[in-house]
Amino acid sequence: MNKFVRNLLTEWRKLNLPFSDETIIVAVSGGADSVSLLIALHELKRRKKLDLNFIVAHFNHNLRGVESEKDAEFVKDLAEKLNFEFVLKVQDSKSKIQDQSGNLEQNARNARYEFLEEVIEKNNASVLLTAHTQNDQAETFLFNLIRGSGLDGLSGIKIKQRRKTKKKQEFWLVRPLLHWAKRQDTENFCLENKIEFRHDAMNDDLKYSRVKIRKEIIPLLKKINPKIIETLSATSLQLSEAANELKISTDLITEKLDLSRLKTLSKLMRIQVLRSWLKESRGHLKQLDLKHFEAIEYLIFSKKSGRIIELPDGEKVLKKDGKLFFEKSGVEKTSADN
Amino acid sequence: MNKFVRNLLTEWRKLNLPFSDETIIVAVSGGADSVSLLIALHELKRRKKLDLNFIVAHFNHNLRGVESEKDAEFVKDLAEKLNFEFVLKVQDSKSKIQDQSGNLEQNARNARYEFLEEVIEKNNASVLLTAHTQNDQAETFLFNLIRGSGLDGLSGIKIKQRRKTKKKQEFWLVRPLLHWAKRQDTENFCLENKIEFRHDAMNDDLKYSRVKIRKEIIPLLKKINPKIIETLSATSLQLSEAANELKISTDLITEKLDLSRLKTLSKLMRIQVLRSWLKESRGHLKQLDLKHFEAIEYLIFSKKSGRIIELPDGEKVLKKDGKLFFEKSGVEKTSADN
Repeated sequence: MNKFVRNLLTEWRKLNLPFSDETIIVAVSGGADSVSLLIALHELKRRKKLDLNFIVAHFNHNLRGVESEKDAEFVKDLAEKLNFEFVLKVQDSKSKIQDQSGNLEQNARNARYEFLEEVIEKNNASVLLTAHTQNDQAETFLFNLIRGSGLDGLSGIKIKQRRKTKKKQEFWLVRPLLHWAKRQDTENFCLENKIEFRHDAMNDDLKYSRVKIRKEIIPLLKKINPKIIETLSATSLQLSEAANELKISTDLITEKLDLSRLKTLSKLMRIQVLRSWLKESRGHLKQLDLKHFEAIEYLIFSKKSGRIIELPDGEKVLKKDGKLFFEKSGVEKTSADN
Repeated sequence: MNKFVRNLLTEWRKLNLPFSDETIIVAVSGGADSVSLLIALHELKRRKKLDLNFIVAHFNHNLRGVESEKDAEFVKDLAEKLNFEFVLKVQDSKSKIQDQSGNLEQNARNARYEFLEEVIEKNNASVLLTAHTQNDQAETFLFNLIRGSGLDGLSGIKIKQRRKTKKKQEFWLVRPLLHWAKRQDTENFCLENKIEFRHDAMNDDLKYSRVKIRKEIIPLLKKINPKIIETLSATSLQLSEAANELKISTDLITEKLDLSRLKTLSKLMRIQVLRSWLKESRGHLKQLDLKHFEAIEYLIFSKKSGRIIELPDGEKVLKKDGKLFFEKSGVEKTSADN
């Protein structure tokens, strides 16, 4: 089996994706990334490694006239050749995307995902695959770094996310190339299979920051570190893990703590959140010791409602409506915003 | 008061630095950064905002022949003009630094800090100031990003660190320009004061990655974000805070836990470390509950040595030689590497 195909299969297992009976949507633009993914999926199907119903979905943004049409035609032909069902949507007019506020790229992406979610709903699919590579990860990382988006932005593209369509159908959005394939690998794999791929001229337009990053900045960085794509991609992954660790302690701390979210934490993390919350609410942690936290812990998991834990100096923690409240000596501190 | 001087004073207060009676060493290379710092300190002294004994220290790395001598001469003259004590050390020979393993820049830095620590010891100084700017922070960030040093490297230069000299004298290493001054600000401030500064030709040599970053990469990034220096500098600070949060849980976990380090943690963090350590040692956390952690907590702070905490299934935690050890049912797991 070709290395590219083997890598995809390994990642498929790692990601715990289904092997049979399900419908999976593959977003295919016609570029080397998505074409290589499609060829590899076809190969895994042919070898009976995967027994899945793949549907190729192509969104024609209609931004580049006849070139856009050629892309669509190309993907349709490829899908047919590989015996995949094919779904197409053509954006009504160029103006529709461009008229919206925000930037063109963002609007185009939103329209594309809207279409893909429709395809998911229509076919009751469980997974949506996109062909993002390590290069996309590295470029996204730099893009977010340059605009100063901080730790969350630097976490980059997620490999597997639970999502919901508008009609609340759940699905997994998965990028099975993200952690191991470089753009060059996808191009090579297409060439090896003697299958062409389309080239998006917008990818060369230096007016876009992403193109500057890809065409100017990354080549410079590569001169210092030839493995810059792998390096940035790995850094992004590391920062996303760090962000996840930290999120729990920052994200959960609000004026009233949500019991159902608290219960999902490890006991240790829960106590950390409680500490931060009480420090925030009381201004300090003085006179609190583990027995108070144990008592609150008990309160969280007890089935009775309306119970109260007494803290020093007449302060209280109480449970009401699925939330924990803090009360300052007799006066409910949070009553103002109820 | 000039804005540059006012900013320095504000930062001085924020950093909780002394205002009188102490000796402070200022590392001055002769470049705009350190010259501007020196001028501003002189101004604060003149205005009686600071009543401190500043000593200007210059290390002549002797890497650029007569130019290095001119730098030293320049700093000496400036220090005299501003009425600061001046200390000079000349590196014996170029070869000495270059012969050592590792790179030239790193070796030069080590030799410089060795000298600065000698000056600290000799003068019983409490603080060492260096004139790193936001540009240094941004460049260090990119340098570490490109070589793939991960979260710790991305944390960048620290604004204030407690350090010890070889003879164990404690001092603060402080960079009072790091969070607010750009290199351009320091140059402008020197010009406003009609004081020249020296230019290090090594700063233009593109064979050094740092020079490539400064001269080629940052200008490109600036085209996308004109405030790239501030952005990278702020990102670095944010990541350093994240790293600090996470460090405790990763850094402290070794086969034997050091009691003195454990004692510096908050109780909550200490328990987190103990949990990770026991999970590592036992392979899981099953059958452990808070009473075990409370018992270990007691063990850590009790003055008796040689005590033991029994865990389920005959496993044990014991205290010996200022460390905590884990024992698997009767057999000391760590004995192999003692």
